[in-house]
Formats: sequence, structure tokens, C-alpha cells
Amino acid sequence: MSKTATAIAHPNIAFIKYWGNRDDALRLPANGSISMNLESLYTRTTVTFSTDLRNNVIKINGKKADNATEFRIKDWLDDLICYLYHKKWLKDAPGNVEIISENSFPTGAGIASSASAFAALTLAVFGALGIEADENVLSYWARHGSGSACRSIPEGFCEWARGSSNEDSTAYSLAPASHWDLVDLIAVISGKHKKVGSSKGHWSADTSPFQEQRVRTAPERIAVCRQAILEKDFSALAEVSEKDMLMMHSVMMTQEPPLFYWEPVTIRVIKAVREWREEGLDCFATIDAGPNVHVICTSESAPAVRERLEKLKGIREILSSGPGGKAHLV
Amino acid sequence: MSKTATAIAHPNIAFIKYWGNRDDALRLPANGSISMNLESLYTRTTVTFSTDLRNNVIKINGKKADNATEFRIKDWLDDLICYLYHKKWLKDAPGNVEIISENSFPTGAGIASSASAFAALTLAVFGALGIEADENVLSYWARHGSGSACRSIPEGFCEWARGSSNEDSTAYSLAPASHWDLVDLIAVISGKHKKVGSSKGHWSADTSPFQEQRVRTAPERIAVCRQAILEKDFSALAEVSEKDMLMMHSVMMTQEPPLFYWEPVTIRVIKAVREWREEGLDCFATIDAGPNVHVICTSESAPAVRERLEKLKGIREILSSGPGGKAHLV
Repeated sequence: MSKTATAIAHPNIAFIKYWGNRDDALRLPANGSISMNLESLYTRTTVTFSTDLRNNVIKINGKKADNATEFRIKDWLDDLICYLYHKKWLKDAPGNVEIISENSFPTGAGIASSASAFAALTLAVFGALGIEADENVLSYWARHGSGSACRSIPEGFCEWARGSSNEDSTAYSLAPASHWDLVDLIAVISGKHKKVGSSKGHWSADTSPFQEQRVRTAPERIAVCRQAILEKDFSALAEVSEKDMLMMHSVMMTQEPPLFYWEPVTIRVIKAVREWREEGLDCFATIDAGPNVHVICTSESAPAVRERLEKLKGIREILSSGPGGKAHLV
Repeated sequence: MSKTATAIAHPNIAFIKYWGNRDDALRLPANGSISMNLESLYTRTTVTFSTDLRNNVIKINGKKADNATEFRIKDWLDDLICYLYHKKWLKDAPGNVEIISENSFPTGAGIASSASAFAALTLAVFGALGIEADENVLSYWARHGSGSACRSIPEGFCEWARGSSNEDSTAYSLAPASHWDLVDLIAVISGKHKKVGSSKGHWSADTSPFQEQRVRTAPERIAVCRQAILEKDFSALAEVSEKDMLMMHSVMMTQEPPLFYWEPVTIRVIKAVREWREEGLDCFATIDAGPNVHVICTSESAPAVRERLEKLKGIREILSSGPGGKAHLV
């Protein structure tokens, strides 16, 4: 007997960043954060539970998952199954699992896939087991897999509340994707980047002399960012987002060991985008734990910004996306 | 009647940085700092006071100084002359002044000259007027002209004390130039850099959410750096200096308006130098308020580091210097 479901989820780009946990095991964040789902990128994951399966199978982009990834997913799934029994939402042992996951975006482009991956996986697991859970529970379990994955569960523009406990540190939608037609032009940076896993980076965020101050002042930036989104105030969103991004990368570069996610081209894009904004184009730069620069624009400015980005040296490719919907079963 | 003197002073590279003032007018620094004079670079300044001069003349590198520089020097000199009368070290009006200043290093290379310039100028003014002053007074007046100039007055490795008042925030030598044969390989970065005057940057350092924490923790880094120099502990010097540099640039990038002194090549050099150190070469990177990277090495490691630097793309020129002596009359 087998039960199956397929889910799609989008990655998200944060305007107010998540960096550092107050509880590493539960991935309870040091501060709240705000992001936008990215419509044109997605992870599509099919989960099948079957008592006929001899072994668990986890395939990502057509390949067997590496040991560390397999362990991380299995560990998460064991916890989730245990939770479902405890809640009495699950009665019978579901058997072994087959997980087949594909990303729509090129691997090795430095676009983090763990957010969309754990969001799609969470939905597909609940779907395959026939359990209907509310968004809060789904967001909570996505967070357990990969912190920022909780923001890929709800629709459009999402806020991940710092929360007061394991249960209420989840994400909810501030506004649907249709609220504001922003465009994310993702400048994919050339060159070999050393991958520094972000989980380990989160664990040592506290070793930066600046993390405490970043966390302490995050609520102010969250309030400004939330308001900017609700009022579609691009200029306010640009200022607070760039500041928050620079604060996160300052923490990263001053923690032990220091994390340098920036490549030479990253700096080139950051500086160029600031100049373009001073010249009147609606655009700002934001960067996650990787070298790529997400250049967020209004739809009016996007063509001109794209034209300029194409002229900068060292950008391998430019991906484009509007705001994305919620994670959903297909 | 005319009185003349010529002085030479070296620029310095800071291991623990000066950024931000607790009193902008007096250039009283927010925190103490530590630096090394650079032997192979210097400013040579001749000062002549003469009642026969019709006007003041200020020439820098063969050209009449621009208005802002002329105003800054005149303002400083008026204060100094006033102080000398007050102390009764000067009795007669010295007449107008001619200042002829030359840098040994190429202009436009992005190497700050204000430290060596004000140190040489201070010495030459006192020399021309025939006033013998102790190092503390000279350092104090150099500081009034340009904060870090006070560190170019004493010999070798110098500490600028935060001090408790206008009089005791001056620099003194921690160790002579002969104490430790470090080498500064200055990677001069190609490209057009927008010059952001550092005086204005100092004034707005407090607008960074990280400046307070940087200043509060500076005494710990100063103690570690001082000890590392006295014990010639390269590894300790490398760690504390890189950390302090990254903290200063974090403050710069998060102040209002943000200051991005880094160019794309700057990041390339920072990351490469860290890798080389992990491979066992004694080297670390430090950067002042400009794009150039000072790669500090032991004399044993310097040839290998230089060879590697020469292979990095985007470095226009590599200047080399050992520790320099004190500012002196010639």
C-alpha cells in the first residue's frame, strides 16, 4: 500500500535577515525576519510512503542525496512522524519513504534551495499522509528543517515572527503576491565560491561583537519594513533592507571563524546599485548567505536596471522573478 | 628676515584603527589605536616664515594647494601660532609662511598622505621658529591637523592613547623600528575610486549601530595588539588586526551615508590573504579609509607573499615598506 503527494514551494529573498538562533536545535531565530517568495523559482517534491519499499530513497535533482543531506532529512522526518503519532494524526506506520525533489533553478548557481526544499517537503509529507494541517503547523515544521523555509509556506510577502516559543515562531503572510509587483533580478556571480554551510554560520553568529546589537535593533527595522511593504513605499524598503543586509554581512565577517560570502563582483554590484538609486532608479541590493546579489526593483525600473546589470563585468547570468505564491500541493 | 626648516615624516598603517571622534573639533578619538610607521614612504616639507613674503604660499607636490586644503592648513597654523604666543615660546610675529611639501609616493595611488603631511608640517613649523618641543607637544599638534598624524611623530610602532583630555591624547612609541622587521606590501588597487574624505566619515561614525560596540571593546584589542608587538607574536597580531579592520569597515558600511571603501579587488585580496595564512604564510590584510590593501608579513614570508600578490588580478602596483623611524628635521 502506498500514499503519495507532490508539492511545489518557492524560495524566498529576505529583506530583513535571519541570522543566528536563540535555540540551534529548534532553529528558534535570534530575531524576526521578512521576505518575499520568488515566483519563477521553485522546488517540486514528490513524497511516497510505502510498506513495499525496502529502503528509504532520497533523490535530489536526479541524484541520490549525499550522506549529510540524507541524515538531515531523515532526522527531521523521524521527529515529524513522532509528532504526528503524538497528536494522533497518524495511526499506522507509514512504511519507508521515497523523496524525489527537483529544483527549477540551476544547481551550483549559488541559489539556496533549502528554504523551498523543506517547504515543499513538509507539504508533500503532510499531503502523502493525508493529514490536513493549518499553515502555522506547516510553517513550524518547515522551520525545523531549515529556518528560512518557514517563510516559503505562506503567500507572497511573509513575516517570520521571532515568537516566544517553539510553537509560535512561524511565518504568516503580510500581503499576497499580487499586492506589489516588485521584481527580483538575481545577479548570479561567476567564479568558484567556497560554500560555507549556513547552519554552522548561524551557530557561531554570537561570536561576532555586533550580533547582539543587530538582534536588539531588529524589531525597529522589521516595523519599518512591514510598513514599507504595506504602503508600497519603495524608498523606505530600499533603505531599511540594504542597511539590514549590510548589518548581517558585518556580523558574518566579524564572527569566528569569519564568513566572507562576498566575491569581488558582489561589491561591484552593491556599489553600482546604490549609484543607480541615487540617479533615480528604484532598485536596491540584498544578499543572503552567498555571493549572488538580489537586485530588487519596481516593475517600472526593472528593464533599465536589467540593462545596466547586463553591462557589469563578472555577472554570469541574471534570473528574474516577481513575488511568489504559497507552497501548495499539485 | 626669514627662518626656515625642513622635516621628513612617514605615513603609518594602523593595526588597531582610529574611527570616529568624541570631539570633532579637537580630533579627540573615540578609541585609542596602534600603528607602524612606513619607512620607505615619506612626506618632506619645508616651512619658511618671512616678513618679506607678501602672501602665504602652500605648495603640495609642485602645485598650489586647493582652497579646502589651504583653509585647513591656515586654520591649523593660526591655532598653533596662537598657542605658541600663549606659551611665550614665540615673541615676535613670524610674518607670512611658505610651505613646500612633497610626497615620495605617487599621488592618486590612494595612499593617505595627511598623516605624514601634518607630522612633517608640525615638525617643520616648530623647527623654522626655533622652538624645541617634546614629542608629546608635537604629537598633540599633529593630531589637531589630522588625527592619525600624531602616530607619525614617534618612532617605529606607536600607540595613540585615547587619553582623558586634549593634552594627553597623543602618541608614543611602543617599540623602535628595529624591534621587528615586519614588511608592509601595499597592494595598490586599480580603477577609479571615489574619494570619500575621511574627516566627514569620522563625524558620522556614530550613526552606525555598531560604532558604540566597536569603541567599547577597543581597549581589549589594543591590549592584545600591544602585547603581540612587544612579544613579536605574528599570529596574535594577525588575528586581532584583521578583526579590528573588519569591525571598522563594518561600521563604515553601516553608517549614514554608508561608506564603501572596498573595491572588488579589495575583497579578492582579503580572501586570498586569509587562505595563504591558513596555508602557513605569515601574512594578514589591513585596510584604512581607502581601497588599497596593506598586506603585513614577516620578512621571511614577504617574498612568497609578494609573488602570490603579483598573480592576483586587478592590483596595479605593489609598494613595499619596513617599519619607519620618527618624524625628524633634516
